[in-house]
Amino acid sequence: MLPILTVFKWSPDGGKGLARDMRARWALEEVGQAYQVRLVSFKGLKAPEHRARHPFGQIPTFEQDGLVLFESGAIVLHLALRHPGLLPSDPDGRARAMMWMFAAVSTVEPPIVEREQSEFTDRGKPWYSPERFAFLDDAIRARLQDLSAHLGEREWLDGAFSAGDLMMVLVLRRAEAPLLAEFPNLAAYVARGEARSAYKHAYAAQAALYAGGPPEDW
Amino acid sequence: MLPILTVFKWSPDGGKGLARDMRARWALEEVGQAYQVRLVSFKGLKAPEHRARHPFGQIPTFEQDGLVLFESGAIVLHLALRHPGLLPSDPDGRARAMMWMFAAVSTVEPPIVEREQSEFTDRGKPWYSPERFAFLDDAIRARLQDLSAHLGEREWLDGAFSAGDLMMVLVLRRAEAPLLAEFPNLAAYVARGEARSAYKHAYAAQAALYAGGPPEDW
Repeated sequence: MLPILTVFKWSPDGGKGLARDMRARWALEEVGQAYQVRLVSFKGLKAPEHRARHPFGQIPTFEQDGLVLFESGAIVLHLALRHPGLLPSDPDGRARAMMWMFAAVSTVEPPIVEREQSEFTDRGKPWYSPERFAFLDDAIRARLQDLSAHLGEREWLDGAFSAGDLMMVLVLRRAEAPLLAEFPNLAAYVARGEARSAYKHAYAAQAALYAGGPPEDW
Repeated sequence: MLPILTVFKWSPDGGKGLARDMRARWALEEVGQAYQVRLVSFKGLKAPEHRARHPFGQIPTFEQDGLVLFESGAIVLHLALRHPGLLPSDPDGRARAMMWMFAAVSTVEPPIVEREQSEFTDRGKPWYSPERFAFLDDAIRARLQDLSAHLGEREWLDGAFSAGDLMMVLVLRRAEAPLLAEFPNLAAYVARGEARSAYKHAYAAQAALYAGGPPEDW
């Protein structure tokens, strides 16, 4: 059976590839695994049927032969451990690739998502202010600065492209474009990820889904 | 060679086991692996010598036989993949245990850490207010509610104790005590983790380090 991903029926980004199913889609393309998608509406995210797959009511989920996974990092790792192409073969290199996966979601992503969500959840709150967004931008900048210093002139985070790069590139894509542009080596790193054939296929697949605009019931 | 962890020379929590080295310490105890520690001062975190180990200048790091890792999740996963005791033996169960590790650091931890850090970083800012802390508490509550609903009457998140539980228990310990107490099954779950012999050994080791109060140069 082909694996099934659950993805947004309508993505808040309208198909710019910022939703977390891009991580699973890109990984599936890198390892050459065909897949199906199941569309979930915003209302459907909180329905018992989807909650049984994802206790936190989000996307993506991954299902294959009775295994049900949520968390994009876990889905990418599952694919990386079972197919060649996303982890190096030497044990230390594998451990470091997994390390970068955790760094992406645990160290670099939180301030980026915090800022992004504040645009929506904090609107109308007394603390919604340019001063606060500048503060949030600085928190993102601190992470990007450290990552940029580590990356230097490297092509990828640790030798060959890995699941760690896949996760990091997609996390960085969620940062505001002007912020990312302050770190040219990170912007070029993201562009290298986007230039990969597997990325392009994954991007096109999700973009096609949302090209017609929001459906009536999303 | 015994593995070496870098840990705080003086922990901001004074030894309550909330710093992220507890995750590595507990995992090492669960798999029966002795280790050494290297103490790092706050100033030392940002020094080139430590940055070479940890690009983001944090603790813990893990070193053994030339391998250097940062990210507590990656260190725990590395130990779990190389020693019995932290992952089930069936492939699907292993994938789900790793899924819970990602859920801990990527879904449950961010709002908890955001609230915790706001106490320090936002002090004196115009948005530092009871209203904002109530808002942050609600974001934590939403995650705890979903986790509590999933856990139900289960002892652990997915069958036997795993690295997923280890990470989740320590993430939950960082939530404010009154918040956690609103979800009695989560509080009991944390207590079950704390009752494990390996947890107790790990806790005692870090508490002993800080029992004398802050050293002169921390």
